[in-house]
Amino acid sequence: MRIDLNADVGESFGRWTLGDDDALLEVVTSANVACGFHAGDPATLRRTCATAARHGVALGAQVSYRDLAGFGRRFVDVAPADLRDDVAYQVGGLAALAAAAGVPLAYVKPHGALYNAVVHHEAQAAAVVEAVAELSAGPLARAWGGPLAVLGLPGSALLRHAADAGLRVVAEAFADRGYTPAGTLVPRAEPGALVTDPAEVAARAVRMAVDHEVVAVDGSVVAVDPGSLCVHGDSPDAVGLARAVRTALAAAGVDVRSFATP
Amino acid sequence: MRIDLNADVGESFGRWTLGDDDALLEVVTSANVACGFHAGDPATLRRTCATAARHGVALGAQVSYRDLAGFGRRFVDVAPADLRDDVAYQVGGLAALAAAAGVPLAYVKPHGALYNAVVHHEAQAAAVVEAVAELSAGPLARAWGGPLAVLGLPGSALLRHAADAGLRVVAEAFADRGYTPAGTLVPRAEPGALVTDPAEVAARAVRMAVDHEVVAVDGSVVAVDPGSLCVHGDSPDAVGLARAVRTALAAAGVDVRSFATP
Amino acid sequence: MRIDLNADVGESFGRWTLGDDDALLEVVTSANVACGFHAGDPATLRRTCATAARHGVALGAQVSYRDLAGFGRRFVDVAPADLRDDVAYQVGGLAALAAAAGVPLAYVKPHGALYNAVVHHEAQAAAVVEAVAELSAGPLARAWGGPLAVLGLPGSALLRHAADAGLRVVAEAFADRGYTPAGTLVPRAEPGALVTDPAEVAARAVRMAVDHEVVAVDGSVVAVDPGSLCVHGDSPDAVGLARAVRTALAAAGVDVRSFATP
Amino acid sequence: MRIDLNADVGESFGRWTLGDDDALLEVVTSANVACGFHAGDPATLRRTCATAARHGVALGAQVSYRDLAGFGRRFVDVAPADLRDDVAYQVGGLAALAAAAGVPLAYVKPHGALYNAVVHHEAQAAAVVEAVAELSAGPLARAWGGPLAVLGLPGSALLRHAADAGLRVVAEAFADRGYTPAGTLVPRAEPGALVTDPAEVAARAVRMAVDHEVVAVDGSVVAVDPGSLCVHGDSPDAVGLARAVRTALAAAGVDVRSFATP
Repeated sequence: MRIDLNADVGESFGRWTLGDDDALLEVVTSANVACGFHAGDPATLRRTCATAARHGVALGAQVSYRDLAGFGRRFVDVAPADLRDDVAYQVGGLAALAAAAGVPLAYVKPHGALYNAVVHHEAQAAAVVEAVAELSAGPLARAWGGPLAVLGLPGSALLRHAADAGLRVVAEAFADRGYTPAGTLVPRAEPGALVTDPAEVAARAVRMAVDHEVVAVDGSVVAVDPGSLCVHGDSPDAVGLARAVRTALAAAGVDVRSFATP
Repeated sequence: MRIDLNADVGESFGRWTLGDDDALLEVVTSANVACGFHAGDPATLRRTCATAARHGVALGAQVSYRDLAGFGRRFVDVAPADLRDDVAYQVGGLAALAAAAGVPLAYVKPHGALYNAVVHHEAQAAAVVEAVAELSAGPLARAWGGPLAVLGLPGSALLRHAADAGLRVVAEAFADRGYTPAGTLVPRAEPGALVTDPAEVAARAVRMAVDHEVVAVDGSVVAVDPGSLCVHGDSPDAVGLARAVRTALAAAGVDVRSFATP
Repeated sequence: MRIDLNADVGESFGRWTLGDDDALLEVVTSANVACGFHAGDPATLRRTCATAARHGVALGAQVSYRDLAGFGRRFVDVAPADLRDDVAYQVGGLAALAAAAGVPLAYVKPHGALYNAVVHHEAQAAAVVEAVAELSAGPLARAWGGPLAVLGLPGSALLRHAADAGLRVVAEAFADRGYTPAGTLVPRAEPGALVTDPAEVAARAVRMAVDHEVVAVDGSVVAVDPGSLCVHGDSPDAVGLARAVRTALAAAGVDVRSFATP
Repeated sequence: MRIDLNADVGESFGRWTLGDDDALLEVVTSANVACGFHAGDPATLRRTCATAARHGVALGAQVSYRDLAGFGRRFVDVAPADLRDDVAYQVGGLAALAAAAGVPLAYVKPHGALYNAVVHHEAQAAAVVEAVAELSAGPLARAWGGPLAVLGLPGSALLRHAADAGLRVVAEAFADRGYTPAGTLVPRAEPGALVTDPAEVAARAVRMAVDHEVVAVDGSVVAVDPGSLCVHGDSPDAVGLARAVRTALAAAGVDVRSFATP
């Protein structure tokens, strides 16, 4: 029994700070680091990578649409070829700051509206994968000690394209989100979308990791098989919730470790 | 007798195009590719790197202040630590697109106002060098097959810091600029600053490469020892001038080849 | 018989120039001036407004999504309230530079992907109109001597919302675009989308202005009633085409004058 | 005895929030609202202007270098003509959102590095003033009910140029900053630069407003004659400090009112 915990970090920008990265990086095992397009100036990236390295946290590139004003939360109908190049640029930019911390990148995870788009948007999903595959095969691949994995939603076009491209795929689950009987997430605007009680979130995380199942909003039991659990970082009690999840997983005998670690 | 010819390329941005990169990359041997901070969207970087690769042109990162609106031509009093990280991010971003073209980066050359600043600004010069040195030593160094060189003005703080850091330094000269008896460039606002006649520019280039000297504005002969000659890319007849220089060098038996080529 | 000719101008940005604004502003009667979000730095706006003022050309705010890298040609799923405020900000920014030229703004026309979106996207159309209505009613309305008109596609959600809000609406037609029998534009990817022969474009413009009709791609005659004809500015022969249209209109006795002129 | 209290507000940007504007706008009488170049997306500007309007707080445009990543705290050697146009654009953009709140702008105050530059930088100071003077004289002037005042440091080139241009100038003092015997601010890096005790800050504010003097770091008494006191908004106890100042001023019988109020 083994699971990874991932969270978004590095989302400050210049004078503006966001999230308690220092505390969060003591709890999670994989860090989705912003890459400058929705958040994350280079100095923030350096600090974030250095802190993650100190805690042995694996580094992932949290790539986004180019949209600082919207924090990457707005769908942008960018041409696939441009998106591919935007993704490559962001991964490279972060890789340079990660290199300064002496740590290779391990994976790529789309952010915000791009994350949601590549669940269904075939062309954008393929574009993201094309960038990751190129970087995984080319000379830069050596910069992170091997091919990059792709972290995303199970059943998404993104993970399907990534698997087809021969990339390692890691599916994630959300212990603090409601699930439909079909195994998809309850939309945020609907009842049952969010689970806020730390004890309940922790219990759901354990059941996901140990029993590979989750109780849906209608009470039915749905199968899940996550390689990673996503912990949200920007809620007021994000760190407390993450700690509760990690503690419960450890108490249940689950090995909490990055999927990138052998 | 051997010399490199370098020029700025990749300076388009989205809908806006600038320069005749395709023609210029048939003439020069080193390409200073914009990195997104003063110009150069990722799709432009990919195209530029691919074209350069086709012509066997060495790739350099033309790093800049973050200033799209000013095209990097305005001094920005950025803190050295932030500048270091901005430089690393730009080099990484470009390296990813260069990797997509299957080509490693070979060097870094500051652009515009940053180029001018690091002639004398010790802290900013040291910051640029710190970024290059880190990337040259860290895991990303393997991404370009070895340490990065630094291309800049002879006598500049930049090249001094780079040499002190153990980096390879390449000094450049300008066949189309006037020189003072002291060997510095005549400021653009003064008489004799620019040499516009193609035949004269070509002859100066040959004398620089073969005899390691240039005639200053007062008629005296000044010693120069450039590893590269800079060809300006954004004048109306830039390509014609570059061709004239290259043809004259070849006719004089000079081996026109990138300093990055063994 | 009277018609307006409008064209996009002010779409340079910093070092990058686009279009021959000086020539175009000698031909058209209304100038859709970029407002900084897809193109148009403030210095460009000042120059453009001053040139337009010299030729007695009416000024409109060509508002856009915030997307310099995409030149405003990519749909952005921006929240309506944010879009409303983005539009107001752009109109105000341009109005200040127009004021420096001593000229009030006369109208608003959405640009690129926003233009296309507000044909059908009710919420975004309403948001654009809300901004224009607010500025037309508030204290700033005096800055341009009266309420702002809205220029757009006939039958669009934008013009419907604008009319409902009591704003003046001006519908435009395209003499160089093919029309379907239903009176909509032939999509650019389909045959007959573009009319390139200057004489034919000019003849269509005259028929639109004089007879209020256009021949559709199937040969049928379709009714149109434009208050303005749009002249594209970024094709190689844009100015020549615009001149041909204007000359033909004048020869046909049509009074070519801005809709904003009494 | 009458004084104005001013503070920086509207410095959030998209997802990132900064400062407790709601609380601060209950205390101050003049609001320096960011204009989008160093902070302040349009939706933030609308909210800020509306809150200020509710509290009867006068609105000023806090204009800046174009530098989101540096929060406008880095000197940029922008050409004066470009700076003039950048200032005009920012004022216009904010004026549009202020108009939506039904409130005219009353003044302009440079932000951060620009504030510091225009103390001595004649060309940039003149450029800022040129923009304000143009907007104060042109048709847009009616948008805010009259000419704009300029708020800045006493003895600065900015206020001198503004006075020469016939603009109203308002000099500000800092109750929480140490003064030299010459009446200038003690540089932040030197001892005595900051006064942090709320009671002492409040007492200094009262003495400035009532007696037009302040005790310098060497104990000497220096004459000051501020039309406004600046209250810093981004320290942890900013609101508490501002309240202490306002309460002390009221207790001393000082009329705390915007300089823009008759």
